[in-house]
Amino acid sequence: MTDTIDEQVNQYKTMIDQRLGQVFDAETINPRLKQAMRYSLTVGGKRVRPILMLLTAEAFGTDIEKVLPVALALECVHTYSLIHDDLPAMDDDDYRRGELTNHKKFDEATAILAGDALLTYSFQLISEAKGLTADEKVHALKRLSEVSGPSGMVGGQMYDLSYEDTNITLNQLEQVHDLKTGQLLIYALEMGAFLSHQPLEVVDAMKRAAAAIGLTFQIQDDILDIIGDEQALGKKVGSDVLNDKSTYPKLLGLEGAKKEKQKFVDETKHQLELTGVLNTNLAQFVISLSDRFS
Amino acid sequence: MTDTIDEQVNQYKTMIDQRLGQVFDAETINPRLKQAMRYSLTVGGKRVRPILMLLTAEAFGTDIEKVLPVALALECVHTYSLIHDDLPAMDDDDYRRGELTNHKKFDEATAILAGDALLTYSFQLISEAKGLTADEKVHALKRLSEVSGPSGMVGGQMYDLSYEDTNITLNQLEQVHDLKTGQLLIYALEMGAFLSHQPLEVVDAMKRAAAAIGLTFQIQDDILDIIGDEQALGKKVGSDVLNDKSTYPKLLGLEGAKKEKQKFVDETKHQLELTGVLNTNLAQFVISLSDRFS
Repeated sequence: MTDTIDEQVNQYKTMIDQRLGQVFDAETINPRLKQAMRYSLTVGGKRVRPILMLLTAEAFGTDIEKVLPVALALECVHTYSLIHDDLPAMDDDDYRRGELTNHKKFDEATAILAGDALLTYSFQLISEAKGLTADEKVHALKRLSEVSGPSGMVGGQMYDLSYEDTNITLNQLEQVHDLKTGQLLIYALEMGAFLSHQPLEVVDAMKRAAAAIGLTFQIQDDILDIIGDEQALGKKVGSDVLNDKSTYPKLLGLEGAKKEKQKFVDETKHQLELTGVLNTNLAQFVISLSDRFS
Repeated sequence: MTDTIDEQVNQYKTMIDQRLGQVFDAETINPRLKQAMRYSLTVGGKRVRPILMLLTAEAFGTDIEKVLPVALALECVHTYSLIHDDLPAMDDDDYRRGELTNHKKFDEATAILAGDALLTYSFQLISEAKGLTADEKVHALKRLSEVSGPSGMVGGQMYDLSYEDTNITLNQLEQVHDLKTGQLLIYALEMGAFLSHQPLEVVDAMKRAAAAIGLTFQIQDDILDIIGDEQALGKKVGSDVLNDKSTYPKLLGLEGAKKEKQKFVDETKHQLELTGVLNTNLAQFVISLSDRFS
């Protein structure tokens, strides 16, 4: 990234962190529940999804304040999904981002409720957003429920769990990633464009770009798990191999995975070019993320 | 209940059961997840909340079809809350309504996801409802997130868990019930009135009526736990006493609890009279439920 983009992205991240730190201050909430919700919401995270939404709005010349509540709602949904995924019945993780997971910091019941609460609150955030018309809110709420619900993210987690210890095809692997992580990324770019009053074909191209971005990130993570540097990635290198997890390198070989990744990088650029946003901070941020460590 | 009301309520219940049985048929959902969602949604239940919403709409002369999607969404939220409350980390129940709980029928991870999915899907149902304006949808979605989220039902469950094995005051007991069960009942009557274009003071009176109804039902359950008949209630008599749970009879004595219940029955009638719906199926249904077995 150039310094200017770096600076802009950091400015957005600071704004998002700050707003997330205050997001339900005014609400009357059981203190322990509020503490648990706040803990996972502010424990860290790169804020990639909300940053992407703000950068998309910026690319189309839209006021950041307009889309910010929707971006915060998206991060609340992402955070809830991490809390529930970490639970003993799911991935059973004790640490995330170097800190205790919610159920280790509090307890399992509190973690389940904190996740439920963050999910529910995300819909409240959008329904109360200033600067959106009722029609915009309804569409943002409808799409949020679709991308995060049974046909989206929750469905992806169910597929992921059901594929444990089985050999899956490339199509199945792609479906898991599309549902489990792709759909929320799609929402980020889609809403950035939709709330900027872009025509349907532009919104659709942004959704295709986001889908390609999601798969790029995933393949890159898989590759880094093999060749990466432990410190840079923040997790033990080779853990996928140790867990015998289905990955792109496992299905395609390392060189095949690199080629597959390049295919999605090219697709991303193509879609961003179609919508005329290739020379924006958004495009440069996305491309820089696709090239990290490789 | 008179035969006519009985018949009307049964007709609504059949309609609700039927719609819930088809509610996400058209959606592409992981088969196991869909099965788990469907299981808890159709395993039984008196459908008190959606019936109350339909009866409220009927009392104000509104087409039932208009409010039905919102009533179904409310039952989805109620069902998700039961699935999560039954989890081992929460109340750890193996049976509900004489059938296996979701995590016993499937497994814990699936039950967590089925709950998440039903909660998320409830917002989709309202956002896609035909016959509602965008403004009506936004308000229905906003209020659903409020009554079921951290300041509502989820908060109530957190208080309930934190009060286990402690002596609480009457005010604390009332707060738990208001949040944990009262808020969804409030939503039922509130939305029935709001979607019938009733003025704010009528909507508010219906909310007060619903709050009183919720506490009436709760005190009645507490009383029945002591004096009731096992078969009629479907759970072991005296289980509250065995679990040393805080109840109205424990705090007020049996006679005191009966008086407290009568206070809320009177309050319900008063509020329904204020709104001019005392001579409706709604009022008769509510009053008949308040008098069951006693």
